[in-house]
Amino acid sequence: MVLIHGGDIESYRLEYGRLPLDFSANCNPLGVPAGVKRAIRDAAAHADAYPDPLCRKLCALIADKTGTLPERVLCGNGAADLIYRAALACKPKRALVPAPSFAEYELALRTVDCEIIRHPLRAEEDFALASDILPALKPDIDMLFLCNPNNPTGLVIDPSLLRQILETCEREGILLIVDECFNGFLEEPEIHTLRHCLSEYKNLLVIDAFTKLYGMAGVRLGYCLSGNEKLLEKMRRAGQPWAVSSLAQAAGIAALQEHNYILRTRALVRKERTFLLTELQSLGIKEYVGEANFIFFHTEIPHLAEQMRKAGILIRDCSNYAGLSDGYYRIAVRKHDENLRLLQALSKAAGKYS
Amino acid sequence: MVLIHGGDIESYRLEYGRLPLDFSANCNPLGVPAGVKRAIRDAAAHADAYPDPLCRKLCALIADKTGTLPERVLCGNGAADLIYRAALACKPKRALVPAPSFAEYELALRTVDCEIIRHPLRAEEDFALASDILPALKPDIDMLFLCNPNNPTGLVIDPSLLRQILETCEREGILLIVDECFNGFLEEPEIHTLRHCLSEYKNLLVIDAFTKLYGMAGVRLGYCLSGNEKLLEKMRRAGQPWAVSSLAQAAGIAALQEHNYILRTRALVRKERTFLLTELQSLGIKEYVGEANFIFFHTEIPHLAEQMRKAGILIRDCSNYAGLSDGYYRIAVRKHDENLRLLQALSKAAGKYS
Repeated sequence: MVLIHGGDIESYRLEYGRLPLDFSANCNPLGVPAGVKRAIRDAAAHADAYPDPLCRKLCALIADKTGTLPERVLCGNGAADLIYRAALACKPKRALVPAPSFAEYELALRTVDCEIIRHPLRAEEDFALASDILPALKPDIDMLFLCNPNNPTGLVIDPSLLRQILETCEREGILLIVDECFNGFLEEPEIHTLRHCLSEYKNLLVIDAFTKLYGMAGVRLGYCLSGNEKLLEKMRRAGQPWAVSSLAQAAGIAALQEHNYILRTRALVRKERTFLLTELQSLGIKEYVGEANFIFFHTEIPHLAEQMRKAGILIRDCSNYAGLSDGYYRIAVRKHDENLRLLQALSKAAGKYS
Repeated sequence: MVLIHGGDIESYRLEYGRLPLDFSANCNPLGVPAGVKRAIRDAAAHADAYPDPLCRKLCALIADKTGTLPERVLCGNGAADLIYRAALACKPKRALVPAPSFAEYELALRTVDCEIIRHPLRAEEDFALASDILPALKPDIDMLFLCNPNNPTGLVIDPSLLRQILETCEREGILLIVDECFNGFLEEPEIHTLRHCLSEYKNLLVIDAFTKLYGMAGVRLGYCLSGNEKLLEKMRRAGQPWAVSSLAQAAGIAALQEHNYILRTRALVRKERTFLLTELQSLGIKEYVGEANFIFFHTEIPHLAEQMRKAGILIRDCSNYAGLSDGYYRIAVRKHDENLRLLQALSKAAGKYS
């Protein structure tokens, strides 16, 4: 089994006997909120009982937070669980997926032998999703995945284009799945989310997760929203009933109380993203200015990820993304002292190369 | 969504505002081991990082404990996750499933539109699996699920019959999936497990879980074993890479140290099962003498589960199992004082009826 994603700190630990500084996964730099840690500890005492298969308490709170109804919420074992469930529940024959984007969309579609049409995002357009997606939305397409902001580029989709895509999908009978896992890191999340369109559009599934925003990747908790309750019911049946652990349910309930944590997160990410962008530019690195909690860039420095790894730092080598090649990388935005360590190592690698 | 399984304490809580005494799920009556609680608490502090997708540390320990190789172990988000992965990875056209048995086998097979052939276990044979399963193992069957000891009956499969089934499946190219989730509660687990047959038989998948034996149903952790590494690799791809949370991995690693807990569990279950069987008999209830941590019985007392529920006790009404009808129930073996409370309520219901 080849590990294709960032965040593989265990391979590093096995090789070096210690943990790396991980810029290869995009989690909240503030770590697990204190309230979430407490909730997990308390829930552990009762973890001999089965979790509520319907996540009733958590769904009600998510509905409240996202301005929808509890019956329009389905929780999963991380957003990835919901991506696979959507594929299995719908068994699309043909799906459209932008490239580069999160690899699990294609991997999930392959489990049901779906034909995948890649919609290329072009380097010469700075990898922005453009209106040429619209004519690609033909009636023989069953499903479209969009990641907004996109992974690995961090770019948001222009809201008016997104609205046109939504209209087209509704008209053509294409299920539009929008992965908003990084929406919470944006400075203006409300402008970019489609979660307020559930009543009007029945071919829409919005996926979000606690994973990144609340520093809970190890806990596994995601959710999706749809005004199409039949779709949610099919997804519920496309897997086991107890996908969400009682620890994750308790963690999610606690996370939704963490208002200050989110404000601190946005402030930190804004400041440090700007700092990193400035510094990367001064190193002559071609960066793509996104709005997420990570930065996508291109550089000719050879074997950069390997060099960084030797310096104890993991960055995401993006050459295995469909639509990308050597030289593309992604780094998380972390705390200032950690970002300084990253820049020092990057600067050393750049100095050797120039 | 109708909840078909036991352990639904949340519905009770929503109705009555307090928790019931739950005999409807079959978890370890000793609750979560102290070491597991500590491990979860400690792991929560680092749960902002992604879990190891390969569960390397845990797989090595499971391999050690079960006498196999780490590459023959695949962990999942509970045993149920692995049941669905097996179905999706193999996409069987036709599968044989005994009835009554655990409902998730059929539900998983249905996600891939598999034709399900039910092999009836008969009341007149006390629901024991008999040798008439052998001629049913025709080459047009792709997959056979067996639960040993069986849920809901608690009966073990005769070891020599099981061996014949194993031989037949190997010869006929039928994937034999044996769910051994309750094996650890048996007094002589080694006699009944097939986990030592992995090298010799490539059409064998053994599923086990921490769920019941270690009182960890809320944590979600299961594993499967196979000498067919290609099958395990296909199952790994039949779902997301991060199915097992880092909390569950830490919990599993800690659980495997709990030797005394397991000895205490077996002693308690043995003693209390005997006690419950004697008392049920004296109430005129027809019981099926199994060897697991639960008891299956039949009674004419009307609406027994509903009566018990009103008394604050959940028991498993088994009438929704394929192959069963009204009057069949399953109860967990719990601690002595809890069993006394159950018997008191049962006795009251029996008294009203007689």
